[in-house]
Amino acid sequence: MTLPSTHPLVDGRTTNSALVSAFSGRRPERRPVWFMRQAGRSLPEYLRVREGVAMLDACLRPELASEITLQPVRRHGVDAGIFFSDIVVPLRLAGVDVDIEPGVGPVLGSPVRTADDVARLRDVGPLTPEALAPVSEGVALTVAELGSTPLIGFAGAPFTLAAYLVEGRPSRDHLGARTLMHADPDTWRELTEWAADVTGAFLRAQVLAGASAAQLFDSWAGSLSLADYTRHAAPSSARALAYVSGLGVRTVHFGTGTGELLAAMRDVGADVVGVDYRIPLDEANRRLGGRTPLQGNIDPALLGAPWPALEAHVRDVVARGSAAPAHVVNLGHGVPPETDPDVLTRVVELVHSL
Amino acid sequence: MTLPSTHPLVDGRTTNSALVSAFSGRRPERRPVWFMRQAGRSLPEYLRVREGVAMLDACLRPELASEITLQPVRRHGVDAGIFFSDIVVPLRLAGVDVDIEPGVGPVLGSPVRTADDVARLRDVGPLTPEALAPVSEGVALTVAELGSTPLIGFAGAPFTLAAYLVEGRPSRDHLGARTLMHADPDTWRELTEWAADVTGAFLRAQVLAGASAAQLFDSWAGSLSLADYTRHAAPSSARALAYVSGLGVRTVHFGTGTGELLAAMRDVGADVVGVDYRIPLDEANRRLGGRTPLQGNIDPALLGAPWPALEAHVRDVVARGSAAPAHVVNLGHGVPPETDPDVLTRVVELVHSL
Repeated sequence: MTLPSTHPLVDGRTTNSALVSAFSGRRPERRPVWFMRQAGRSLPEYLRVREGVAMLDACLRPELASEITLQPVRRHGVDAGIFFSDIVVPLRLAGVDVDIEPGVGPVLGSPVRTADDVARLRDVGPLTPEALAPVSEGVALTVAELGSTPLIGFAGAPFTLAAYLVEGRPSRDHLGARTLMHADPDTWRELTEWAADVTGAFLRAQVLAGASAAQLFDSWAGSLSLADYTRHAAPSSARALAYVSGLGVRTVHFGTGTGELLAAMRDVGADVVGVDYRIPLDEANRRLGGRTPLQGNIDPALLGAPWPALEAHVRDVVARGSAAPAHVVNLGHGVPPETDPDVLTRVVELVHSL
Repeated sequence: MTLPSTHPLVDGRTTNSALVSAFSGRRPERRPVWFMRQAGRSLPEYLRVREGVAMLDACLRPELASEITLQPVRRHGVDAGIFFSDIVVPLRLAGVDVDIEPGVGPVLGSPVRTADDVARLRDVGPLTPEALAPVSEGVALTVAELGSTPLIGFAGAPFTLAAYLVEGRPSRDHLGARTLMHADPDTWRELTEWAADVTGAFLRAQVLAGASAAQLFDSWAGSLSLADYTRHAAPSSARALAYVSGLGVRTVHFGTGTGELLAAMRDVGADVVGVDYRIPLDEANRRLGGRTPLQGNIDPALLGAPWPALEAHVRDVVARGSAAPAHVVNLGHGVPPETDPDVLTRVVELVHSL
C-alpha cells in the first residue's frame, strides 16, 4: 500500500532507533530494552491517574491512555513505549459485553460456547475506524510526545482471546476452549477468525496512527501442544498479523511456556519472537535456526531478588542473547505489580552500559 | 531394609499386575490405564459421600478416604487405585495452619516467607508415625479391598508444596516462591528440605501400609527453567523420593508443562516419568533416551469432545506410547470435574481392547 506522506512511517522518525534496528535484525550500538507491562500497577504515578477510573475506561480515554503509556518511558528511559491497553479492548469496541474485574481479569457477560453464540458474535463485528477512534487518537497523542522513541502497538492473539470468550473468565487450563477446538473445529475456526479480524483491526489502527512496531500477545499459547497450535491457533494468528503486513513495521509474537512453539509462532508471519524466562536465549536461538531476532527473557521473579542476583541474571540473559541476530532485552513476562520501579530503572541503566 | 513378613510387598499380591509390570519396564499383556484425579468430583457417588465433609477431613477419615479411593476402581475397572488425599495433607498433619477453600485451593493461615518463618516451620516437624496413623489406616483398609489391584501412594513434591507455603494460596506464576529461591537460596533450601521430609514421610507411610507404587506430583515444576529446576527443586525431590527407596516399589514423577524437565525429573530417582498432554509420548521417549517407562498423556480437553475425536486421540497416544519401554495410559492432567464418568469407563474399555 502507499502510505500518506504525513504518515509517521514515512518521516523515518524511529527508523534508526535501537529498537527498530534490532527488530530488523541489525545490531544497534545501544542494546534496546523495555518491559512488558511497564505501564501499570508498579508505578505510583499510574496508580494516581487511574484512581476511580475502570481499567477499560482508562484504555479508551485517549489522553489518559497516552499519559499512562508515556510514564514508564519518562521514568525508566526505556527504548520503547507500548500502547497502554488490554487484549479485550477490541472485543469491547466490537460490542461484546466484557469488563475487567479487579483481581480477577476479563469477565464476559455471556461466554461464547456454541455455533449459535459464534454466529451472534459475528453479527457484532467488524470493527470500524469510528469504533477504533479512541485507540487511534491515543496512539497519535503518544507518538507526538515520543519523538524518536518508537511506540509498539499491542494486541492479543486470537487463541488467547477465544480462550477468554469461551471460558468467560481467566482459567488455568483453558479446557473449555481446548475442548471446543476438538469437539467442533468449524465453530472454533469461525470464532478464531472473528477474533483475528477484531484484534487485527485493533493492531492495524495503532500502526496507522503511528506505532513503529506491533506485538501480538498469545498469553495462553503455551497450553497447547505443537500439533494443536499449528492446526487450531496458527492460522488465526497469521490472519491477525496480516492486518499489519505491508505497513512497514516489524512484528513481534510472544507467549509464555512456548519453548516447543517458537518456530511455529514465527512462521505465522512474525519478524521477532518473544521468549519467556523458561528457556535460555541461546537455546531459543538454536530452535529458531539462528535467523530470528529475539526479545526477552529476564525472569520477573528476579526483580524481587537482591541486586547482585538480578545483575548476574541480566548479564547472563544479555550474553546468551548475543547468540541471536539481534536481541531486545525485556522480561520473560509482565512486570509484577509489587516491583520496585527503581529496580527497573537500574536494569535499563545496566543494559545500556553493557 | 528387611520388610516384615506380613508386609503386602512380600506377599507378591500385585507384583504381576499390569500396572506394576509396566512401571517395572515390562510389557504386560493388558495395557494398564488409570486416571489422575479419578477419585473425586467427576463421580456422583463421590459427591454423595463428601456431602458436608470438608476436603481435608475427608482425606483424614480412614474409612471415607478408602471408600473414595475405591469408587473409581469399582466403576471404571482401572488398573490401579490412587490413594485419595491432597498434597497439603502432610502439612496439616505436621501442624501447619492450612485448609482447602472450595473453588480456590489450599490456603495457608500465615504464608512462609522469611528465614524466621522457615525456622518456625522446622519446629513443627517431623511427621511422626502417630500423626500419620489416619493415612496408614486408610491405605491398609484400601489395600485389603483392592486385592491384586495395586494402590499408588500419593504425595506432592517439595517445590510445589513450598510454592503453596510461600504464596499462601494457588498462584499462576509462583513468583513469591521463585523470588525466594534466588533471593535467599539458603532459606529456600531449608524450606524445601523440610517439605521433602514431611511429604517423604507421608509417601513412605502409604507404602509401608501397602501401596504398591508411589507417585510424586510436582504440579508447578513447569514454571521453572531447567537450570532453576536442577538447582532449586531437584535436590529436595530426590530427598523426598529417598523416603521410599529400598521399599521395593516403583516411583513415578509427574508435573505439567515439563517438556524441558523430563530427564531431570527422572534423574532425581524416579522409575517412571509422567508426561502431560503438551508433547507426544514418542518425543518424550526420545528426550528420555528410550529407557524410561512413561505414563500419560491423554489431553483432558478431549474428554469433553465427541467420542470419535476422543477415540482417535486415545489410539494416537497408545501408538506413540509404544515407542517407550512401557506405557501406563493416563491423562496428561487430572480429570476435569465436569467429565461424564461414562466417558472414562469407555476409555478404559478402549485401552484394554487395544
